[in-house]
Amino acid sequence: MQITPGKYLADIQYPADLKKVSESDLHLVCQDLRQYIIDTVSVFGGHFGASLGVVELTVALHYVLDTPNDQLIWDVGHQAYGHKILTGRRDNFHTNRVYGGLSGFPKRKESEYDAFGVGHSSTSISAGLGMAVASQLNGEKEKQIVAVIGDGAMTGGMAFEAMNHAGDSAANMIIILNDNCMSIDPNVGALKDYLTDITTSHTYNKFKDEIWNVLGKFSKFGINAQEIASKIEGGLKASLLKHSNLFESLNLRYFGPVDGHDVHHLVKVLEDLKHIPGPKILHCVTTKGKGYALAEKDQTLWHAPGKFDKITGEIHKKVFEKPQPPKYQDVFGHTLLELAKENQAIVGVTPAMPSGSSMNIMMKEMPDRAFDVGIAEQHAVTFSAGLATMGKVPFCNIYSTFMQRGYDQVVHDVCLQNLQVVFCLDRAGFAGADGPTHHGAYDIAYMRCIPNMIVSAPMNEEELRNLMFTAQAENHGPFTIRYPRGEGVMPNWKTDLQKIEVGTGRKIKDGNEVAIVSLGHIGNLALKAANQLAEEGVSAAVYDARFVKPLDTKLFHHIFQNFDNIITVEDGCVMGGFGSAVLEFAADNGYYSKVKRLGIPDEVIEHGEQSELYRDCGYDVQGISKAVYALLETVKA
Amino acid sequence: MQITPGKYLADIQYPADLKKVSESDLHLVCQDLRQYIIDTVSVFGGHFGASLGVVELTVALHYVLDTPNDQLIWDVGHQAYGHKILTGRRDNFHTNRVYGGLSGFPKRKESEYDAFGVGHSSTSISAGLGMAVASQLNGEKEKQIVAVIGDGAMTGGMAFEAMNHAGDSAANMIIILNDNCMSIDPNVGALKDYLTDITTSHTYNKFKDEIWNVLGKFSKFGINAQEIASKIEGGLKASLLKHSNLFESLNLRYFGPVDGHDVHHLVKVLEDLKHIPGPKILHCVTTKGKGYALAEKDQTLWHAPGKFDKITGEIHKKVFEKPQPPKYQDVFGHTLLELAKENQAIVGVTPAMPSGSSMNIMMKEMPDRAFDVGIAEQHAVTFSAGLATMGKVPFCNIYSTFMQRGYDQVVHDVCLQNLQVVFCLDRAGFAGADGPTHHGAYDIAYMRCIPNMIVSAPMNEEELRNLMFTAQAENHGPFTIRYPRGEGVMPNWKTDLQKIEVGTGRKIKDGNEVAIVSLGHIGNLALKAANQLAEEGVSAAVYDARFVKPLDTKLFHHIFQNFDNIITVEDGCVMGGFGSAVLEFAADNGYYSKVKRLGIPDEVIEHGEQSELYRDCGYDVQGISKAVYALLETVKA
Repeated sequence: MQITPGKYLADIQYPADLKKVSESDLHLVCQDLRQYIIDTVSVFGGHFGASLGVVELTVALHYVLDTPNDQLIWDVGHQAYGHKILTGRRDNFHTNRVYGGLSGFPKRKESEYDAFGVGHSSTSISAGLGMAVASQLNGEKEKQIVAVIGDGAMTGGMAFEAMNHAGDSAANMIIILNDNCMSIDPNVGALKDYLTDITTSHTYNKFKDEIWNVLGKFSKFGINAQEIASKIEGGLKASLLKHSNLFESLNLRYFGPVDGHDVHHLVKVLEDLKHIPGPKILHCVTTKGKGYALAEKDQTLWHAPGKFDKITGEIHKKVFEKPQPPKYQDVFGHTLLELAKENQAIVGVTPAMPSGSSMNIMMKEMPDRAFDVGIAEQHAVTFSAGLATMGKVPFCNIYSTFMQRGYDQVVHDVCLQNLQVVFCLDRAGFAGADGPTHHGAYDIAYMRCIPNMIVSAPMNEEELRNLMFTAQAENHGPFTIRYPRGEGVMPNWKTDLQKIEVGTGRKIKDGNEVAIVSLGHIGNLALKAANQLAEEGVSAAVYDARFVKPLDTKLFHHIFQNFDNIITVEDGCVMGGFGSAVLEFAADNGYYSKVKRLGIPDEVIEHGEQSELYRDCGYDVQGISKAVYALLETVKA
Repeated sequence: MQITPGKYLADIQYPADLKKVSESDLHLVCQDLRQYIIDTVSVFGGHFGASLGVVELTVALHYVLDTPNDQLIWDVGHQAYGHKILTGRRDNFHTNRVYGGLSGFPKRKESEYDAFGVGHSSTSISAGLGMAVASQLNGEKEKQIVAVIGDGAMTGGMAFEAMNHAGDSAANMIIILNDNCMSIDPNVGALKDYLTDITTSHTYNKFKDEIWNVLGKFSKFGINAQEIASKIEGGLKASLLKHSNLFESLNLRYFGPVDGHDVHHLVKVLEDLKHIPGPKILHCVTTKGKGYALAEKDQTLWHAPGKFDKITGEIHKKVFEKPQPPKYQDVFGHTLLELAKENQAIVGVTPAMPSGSSMNIMMKEMPDRAFDVGIAEQHAVTFSAGLATMGKVPFCNIYSTFMQRGYDQVVHDVCLQNLQVVFCLDRAGFAGADGPTHHGAYDIAYMRCIPNMIVSAPMNEEELRNLMFTAQAENHGPFTIRYPRGEGVMPNWKTDLQKIEVGTGRKIKDGNEVAIVSLGHIGNLALKAANQLAEEGVSAAVYDARFVKPLDTKLFHHIFQNFDNIITVEDGCVMGGFGSAVLEFAADNGYYSKVKRLGIPDEVIEHGEQSELYRDCGYDVQGISKAVYALLETVKA
């Protein structure tokens, strides 16, 4: 189904077409663009609120800038749908986030208009500064570098690191702070309050208005904006205003706040800023979900609502005849609350993912004991370490892919000190439609090499619950539990909580020709493959390793002593992952069975349904089965 | 040799003893403590300037606080010598940084007075906030949590993340900003300029002085400081001052700047701050190296000068009869400049380590093309990625242990986009005296699992030069070169630059009983071991793998086809490291030779000379030799 663009959007395939529109008609382009996003996302799904919030900004930027020569970076990238639609991808936009289709995020391989690939937060200022410095070295004085970053992403430490450097450099760069008080969940922290304060402060804005008036007046007369800027700066330096602003403290010229939904004003402001040298920040106030009333009202729900009826606002949900297994994240959320009720030491920590991790369940009942620390994975980990030194048992829930950002803190603050912090890595393995920036591919490799760290993965809901129970029941030191995005396998998931002995796996199915040893949820596919093989007359045993570290040495001695052919299966990178741990065990113990490792190969795997990616990487049911035949073939040969 | 403490220090073993000293005599304790540090470090070596700079702060803190019940966290920890001396470790202090002796950093295992283990920068506010929140949950209202953090460490993003959270919480915590404009090298960035501005601004300080006057007056009359604080705050809220300060923007009550060398004033200020609830920051201005004139003058040189004559200030350097091999870092530094002269695209990036990495050689000659970005590893990596998108070839030099802090950026911003960034990981393998927080143990494991990443390690100076040459000669995408702390093996190191084919190793020595395959500098020990074995009648071949990724498949086919006994040697973790890559190769190719992996075992290895740690971990010359005999024995049996 092709979505029909409105009259003004119909003629626009590229920014060059947009530039032909008269400035006075730009709000009509915005109208069409907004409608096109609503029409598309309601039918095909995807991220919603963020892109609606920056429609005017998107149009203004491509109107004023000379993209792709000028470099436009969208932090995180959820908000870049309008950008994609205006840069040659409109007619392909219905393939967004679909296997083989467009990426949900800006991506350098996809378009020359995507200056920098994004997905994780807070990278845009660093990347932009690199580009700005490179332009400076190349003597390209006219080139514009623009980073659009949300107020949530601004809480990520690397944004601050980048501003500290930018403020010390003379590189030309415009940082646009897209301030809507939101990331996926409402933004938290002192910075948010501060931004709200300066947005609503009359005293403060009186100063600022005067500056804008001056700037506006001079612009009209065509006087050099650079000259104006230095005059203004001179004036400010004499006053307290110089340090009256957090950004100006960092030597970034601050402009705003401006209404991010007034496209005409935005065009004027951006035209002016283009001619002001050095690093500067434009504070735009926007509304996430702007123009779609329901999305404005419940911004978390409408961050990525799935498909919906754009008229009634009804979000389409699949209806099932019988009870379905829950999402792993919800099993985590409910079980955490259940455990926290019994164990007063338990606290919850999430870096800006209360709804994504389902820690909001605990936050609602125990607001004093569950902490959303903002987009701040580094802080989340060391904050947890601090809590642990005082006898608390923090459950620190971070998506596998985002855990990469707290890696040093895991090593240095938690593991070296052997503190009891439970890391729950959601979205471990393939993330699905979010694609390579979000696949949780590397955690097994990067976690298991750290001393003191326990690394485990549940095969189903019951194991997730029991691993969580085990991790808090006694002090085992740092304890990682990784589980995938999406549903488990047990409609009746609320099993009794039981301890699991750390470092023990289990046999799931007997067999004698080949042993399939799996880690985590993917074991369900291994079991299916083995059952299918049994029907075909091949006898495959299945083991659920449960722990990568410590490995169940007793179980693995048994396996290696009984099988010449072993297949390992994991939803993680084969380079250095679970399978490698098995090879290490074999080498250390003098076993010489043939071991075939299945998992994510050493390449960038694009987006798609998890099942499509398992298939492509050869560890869906058919892939596992095929690997068994190949292995037995080899052995026979 | 035992150092004799001065009269006032002699009676102090613990803070309880310090508290017996009259407040008016505290400057005499400071005198003795400073002298003791000078006496000890001049004889035994260690970090110097940082601890001299906080003598008064250390004494004041332990005088006012109730340690170890109150929690005192030293960010980084270079400055904690005085703290150690005052907390039961004076008579043991000469063992500082020596194998089996005291750690150079605060360490929880070592003393209950060390509230949080440190080494890497910018962790203290996060950890402290965790402790403060835990105390709050426990209802411990009187417990004080103090984090002492330098202005350099304040540029690290996680400090900002923590402040953003702290400012949003009501937890009791004192952050002491130890502002000396330095980390190891002079601090850089906009924040530094800002701090200098507020320290020297008369207008600003007039406001602040008035506050202190009021506070001081009330304190004298014993009026509740909490009441005063709220009065002051009320007054400030009405004025522009509320937002006149970066820290107050983040809702941290800001006090200062105060003279960090006036111990009497510090005691008063800290007494007052103890009674002011919520998160607050005290800005102390100090001089690194205070009290030792030469150290005040050249703060980088005297950060950790080694042993010296305390009277003449002469730093003792070993004198050798014949030319010695250079440090790897210097080979890097000189070679980078040499390459940059030929290739205009090359730029250098270091996060606050210009002297430690020897990038200062390039910075001096090409200040426009080499960037010190502050203590900001995350930003350093993504800034490099941004530079690379514009055709620059960044050499981003980060110690192996600190690279952990830019891990997500390596994955997400560099490798997924396959950008040509050359990561030079200095101090890879054992760091030596700095100990576990600084060992570069994990980089092979965490780097080789990332798609597109090349991972290499030179065995000597010539290979380092050639790998650097190779990495910039063509675009190979992300390219890691890891090398150790300390000296190489080639006094005549300035060899001609030659390309190395990516993914090729080399044979160093023929042999037929066992193959020793090494990675990097440690191969020199492997070669010695093989030569020694030859004298003992055992024929060991030696191979220098050079690349962990891609592995030299041709070479490894040769090795596995010719040897039943293989030993891998690496100065890195055996779990998931180079040896595991070799096991993967064997498994994937159906080889069944016996492989013994030597490297850093899966435990926390303490500090000591590199040679001591190689020995303990069984991969010094004797260890390798022993492993060969054990392997051959096993095979015979």
